[in-house]
Amino acid sequence: MPVTLAVDLMGGDHGPPVVSPAVCAFLRKQVAASVIAVGLPDALAELTHRAGDEFGPRLSTFPASEVVSMDESVASALRGKKDSSLRVAINLVKEGKADAIVSAGNTGALMGIARFVLKTLPGIDRPAIATILPTLKGHTYVLDLGANVDCGAEDLLQFGIMGAMLVAALENKPEPSVGLLNIGIEEIKGNETVRRAGELLRASGLNFRGNVEGDDIYKGTTDVVVCDGFVGNIALKTSEGLAQMLATYLRDEFSRSWSRKMLALLAYPALKAFKERVDHRRYNGAALVGLRAVAVKSHGSADAFAFECALHRAYEAVATRVIDRIGQRIASFAESQEPVKFVGGSA
Amino acid sequence: MPVTLAVDLMGGDHGPPVVSPAVCAFLRKQVAASVIAVGLPDALAELTHRAGDEFGPRLSTFPASEVVSMDESVASALRGKKDSSLRVAINLVKEGKADAIVSAGNTGALMGIARFVLKTLPGIDRPAIATILPTLKGHTYVLDLGANVDCGAEDLLQFGIMGAMLVAALENKPEPSVGLLNIGIEEIKGNETVRRAGELLRASGLNFRGNVEGDDIYKGTTDVVVCDGFVGNIALKTSEGLAQMLATYLRDEFSRSWSRKMLALLAYPALKAFKERVDHRRYNGAALVGLRAVAVKSHGSADAFAFECALHRAYEAVATRVIDRIGQRIASFAESQEPVKFVGGSA
Repeated sequence: MPVTLAVDLMGGDHGPPVVSPAVCAFLRKQVAASVIAVGLPDALAELTHRAGDEFGPRLSTFPASEVVSMDESVASALRGKKDSSLRVAINLVKEGKADAIVSAGNTGALMGIARFVLKTLPGIDRPAIATILPTLKGHTYVLDLGANVDCGAEDLLQFGIMGAMLVAALENKPEPSVGLLNIGIEEIKGNETVRRAGELLRASGLNFRGNVEGDDIYKGTTDVVVCDGFVGNIALKTSEGLAQMLATYLRDEFSRSWSRKMLALLAYPALKAFKERVDHRRYNGAALVGLRAVAVKSHGSADAFAFECALHRAYEAVATRVIDRIGQRIASFAESQEPVKFVGGSA
Repeated sequence: MPVTLAVDLMGGDHGPPVVSPAVCAFLRKQVAASVIAVGLPDALAELTHRAGDEFGPRLSTFPASEVVSMDESVASALRGKKDSSLRVAINLVKEGKADAIVSAGNTGALMGIARFVLKTLPGIDRPAIATILPTLKGHTYVLDLGANVDCGAEDLLQFGIMGAMLVAALENKPEPSVGLLNIGIEEIKGNETVRRAGELLRASGLNFRGNVEGDDIYKGTTDVVVCDGFVGNIALKTSEGLAQMLATYLRDEFSRSWSRKMLALLAYPALKAFKERVDHRRYNGAALVGLRAVAVKSHGSADAFAFECALHRAYEAVATRVIDRIGQRIASFAESQEPVKFVGGSA
């Protein structure tokens, strides 16, 4: 199945200098994929010059006249910049010219515009941002990571359902286990919203394992970890900061003296394997779940390798028909689950 | 200045088998310190047997007939177990027989009983749990870490003040920098409570640096990081989980083959130095700030080395007269700051 990605060339801290080489590297590896790059004319010309004829019709360009900045408000991006590279790329998906949108741009703007243009799946109020994190057992999916900063218990229930459906589709696991991120495993723990979400999840028919704590994320206790966007963002960013600090410390210890540096050379394969295994760039590319099309958000500070990973993630989601499968599962889930109230989506 | 610690022998996942040796190791190092160990008679007898005459009057025991379990509710511990080791140890501080209480027991019960018995400082509504975390630049203080799961903006302001006063006293920094943990550095980011807390902190006269993100904790961007107890607990536990996973991965890489194991032997000093530098046990011992006496909470799963670190932390807090200094600073801060509303403490 051919897959076409609409790529926002201008998004992220670096824009075209990172996104353009990532697009080329991606197209070299995924020979069944096409990319429509959307950006300012200069950036498109540079990309065309860089790629030459290498990809033929698999790489095309589409001009936009504006760029959404990283700290712009959703309202300004949505109403004030109708010809932004982000908006135009999302429109291409809406019009059926592309199967998915990938951007390293402003998260709020991406979510706001995607929700407005692409709409949510029936039964979903608020899309969520889901990412994969490595664990001791493999990997786990965490959502929400920042799309929703004020969540009610019903929202957390929907995140649980969407997360379970996402894992069921992507990993072919019929009943993924779901945990609710909390400050203790006992049911009485947490704030009012989280306790109520626990009740809803217990009654949901999902394979709900109750509360999990922060360390359970990396232990891989459950396939899905549910939290509100504020907490999820803090947990993710804190992890990034800690990983960077530990990497710096490790580098320090192996460069303290000439003998240590020699050792680092000898230990290079082990240290390199360790570094690759924990390289957060490999996990770049968070899915906006709950929309009627695939939208993938790259980290704003992604380098070309990390952005390429986000492109592969979008490709996989389209190729495995994740949206159809989530939609079907949510529909059948809603039918089978009398007690769960599904509020109409924004469709 | 002689310092006497009341130690809850029964608290934590392990109880006396961990706490008793920690007390002995602590007393060997801090020759100006005394300990009153509080516990069930059998545990006290075992400790007395273990210590023999080594510490003379520096080690005494005080019996209790009950133990607060790790998952007991605050209400049950507070009203139903008036002769628990935790309660009796806190009473010793109240009665002036000890200067500080240290426990690895139930956090909620420790906070609830300490607040009820010891009272809060004037001007403080809710005590907070503050811990030290290592950073790229040294270390930083984070609060709250789980004492308060539903915080208003005023609470976050008070945490900022208490954290700043704690660092000012412990580190002799006149104007510690304070950051508010949020999902972006822009003032518009975050939920309603956090945005309002940002306004209060900006008007507080503290050395407030605005919002910080999760990765700023380990970058050491500010001396103090303020957050509500739910978020702080998740950030801390997530960090623990990640650190454990990375340690496991590193061990894996250095034990894949005989040659790798040989390398690990050669690299042992570097790996050991790295391990010690990031050993979370060294940071064990969170301070309950805002009370009228020093109370230190050890991690429930602490081993003897970690628990000993918590004892040293309590000793330092008493020896540097942290409570007086926080109290004085809060009083002078309250006088100088007309716009900040101080609600009466529970004293």
